[in-house]
Amino acid sequence: MALRLDVIGFDLQRALHPPAGGYASAVHEGNLLHLAGHGPLLDGAPAHRGRVPTEVTVAEAVAAARLTAINCLATIQDVLGSLERVAGFVRVFGMVNAEPGFTQHPAVLDGASQLLAEVFGAERARHARSAVGMGSLPFDIPVEIEMTVRVAEGDPLTSAT
Amino acid sequence: MALRLDVIGFDLQRALHPPAGGYASAVHEGNLLHLAGHGPLLDGAPAHRGRVPTEVTVAEAVAAARLTAINCLATIQDVLGSLERVAGFVRVFGMVNAEPGFTQHPAVLDGASQLLAEVFGAERARHARSAVGMGSLPFDIPVEIEMTVRVAEGDPLTSAT
Amino acid sequence: MALRLDVIGFDLQRALHPPAGGYASAVHEGNLLHLAGHGPLLDGAPAHRGRVPTEVTVAEAVAAARLTAINCLATIQDVLGSLERVAGFVRVFGMVNAEPGFTQHPAVLDGASQLLAEVFGAERARHARSAVGMGSLPFDIPVEIEMTVRVAEGDPLTSAT
Repeated sequence: MALRLDVIGFDLQRALHPPAGGYASAVHEGNLLHLAGHGPLLDGAPAHRGRVPTEVTVAEAVAAARLTAINCLATIQDVLGSLERVAGFVRVFGMVNAEPGFTQHPAVLDGASQLLAEVFGAERARHARSAVGMGSLPFDIPVEIEMTVRVAEGDPLTSAT
Repeated sequence: MALRLDVIGFDLQRALHPPAGGYASAVHEGNLLHLAGHGPLLDGAPAHRGRVPTEVTVAEAVAAARLTAINCLATIQDVLGSLERVAGFVRVFGMVNAEPGFTQHPAVLDGASQLLAEVFGAERARHARSAVGMGSLPFDIPVEIEMTVRVAEGDPLTSAT
Repeated sequence: MALRLDVIGFDLQRALHPPAGGYASAVHEGNLLHLAGHGPLLDGAPAHRGRVPTEVTVAEAVAAARLTAINCLATIQDVLGSLERVAGFVRVFGMVNAEPGFTQHPAVLDGASQLLAEVFGAERARHARSAVGMGSLPFDIPVEIEMTVRVAEGDPLTSAT
C-alpha cells in the first residue's frame, strides 16, 4: 500500500527538530529503530502546552498526540531517508501530562495511533501501546511519545543513526 | 518445570479483554513479544480503581498488581496459543497510580513478580523491573504493567500477532 | 578509546546494590542487556531524596541523575565482568520525581547522559532518551533511570545474568 503522507497536511520538515539535550533522536539496533521521547513541536517550538484536561482539552490533546506522532515520523524520515523503509511498528509508549484523576489517556493517544494508521494503513501501523499519565513533561507539553520502529531490510541505515 | 496455572485461582479467559483503543494487545518482533500496557481487569472491567495509598491500600494494590500480571498472561496465552511457549521474561515496567510522596512501589509490583514466579518458577520468571509512580492512569486503575516476553523457538507466532 | 572510569570519582562498587524486590537488576536478551530501574544510591542507601525542584534543586537533581547513571554502570560491570564489554547504549528512560508544572527534565537527565559521554566518549555513549516527570518514585528518590545496553560480541554473558 502506498503511504498517505498527504494526511499530515504540512511539510514534514516542519516537525523535525534537534534533541533537547545530550542524546540522539533515534538509535538503531538490529532491524529496530528506537526513538527518543518526542513532543508536539512545529517549526521548532511546542504547538501545545499545558495539562490535560484543565489547561488543554481532551480534543486539543488528541491533536497534540497526532502532531507528536508526526514529529516521530519526521525523525524516522530524517534517519532512514524515507518512510518507505518503515516495515512496521512495535511499541508506542504514550505519556499524557494530566491532572490527577484523569482517565481518558487511551482516547488522547488514539490521536497518534490513528495518524499512523492513516499514513501506513492499519496492518503496517499495528503497534502495542501504553497510554499513561505523567506528573509533568518537558516544556509543559501535553503529550510525549517514545516508539520503536521495525525497519525493512535493504540499504543499511545511514551512519547518522 | 510444569506451569502452575492453578495459582491463578480462576479461568484465565476472565482476564482477557480487547485493547482500549487503536492498538494491539501484543506485537511480536523476532523472538520477543511486546505487550501493550495492561491493567487489573476481570470479566471486562477494572476490578480495582483509585490512587494508592489513599483510595486503594497497599495491600489492595499488591492484589491489583497480581491481577494485572494475570491479565498479561491471558493476552500471552491468547497470542501464543499456550503459556508453555513462554521461554522467559525480559522487562516488566510497573506503574502505580500513586499520591505524591508514595514510596512503596516495589512492594506493590512484587505482587506481579511473585505471580510470575509462582506460575513459571523463579528462573523462568526472571525479569528486569522498574516500579514507578504515575500521576494518573486510564480508567483510574491503580496499577498498569507493560512487559516484554521471550518466546521459545518452535511453531511460528500466529498471524493474529 | 579507553574508558575514563576516573571521572566517577569513587569506587564503582559503592554504587552496586541488590534489587529492591522480586526481580533482577539486569536481564540479557541477545546482544542487549536490559537494566531494571536504578536510582541514586551510594553505599546501599539513596544519596538524594525528594521532589524536584522544591525539595531537591535542579542542580542537585543533575547530580542525582549522574549518580543514577553510575549505579547503572555498577550493575553493568557486575553482570558483564567489565565495562569494556559495553559496545554502546540504545535507550535511556529518565524519570524525574517532579512537582506538577516542572519543565526542566532534559537538563536533569543531561547529568546522566554527560556521565556516559565522559566515561565512554560521545560516540560509544550515544543513546535515545526520554526525560519525563513522575508523580512519585520509590524511596522518594528524585531520579530513576531504566536503560538498554548493547554488549560487544565475545565471551558469553555470565550465568549470573
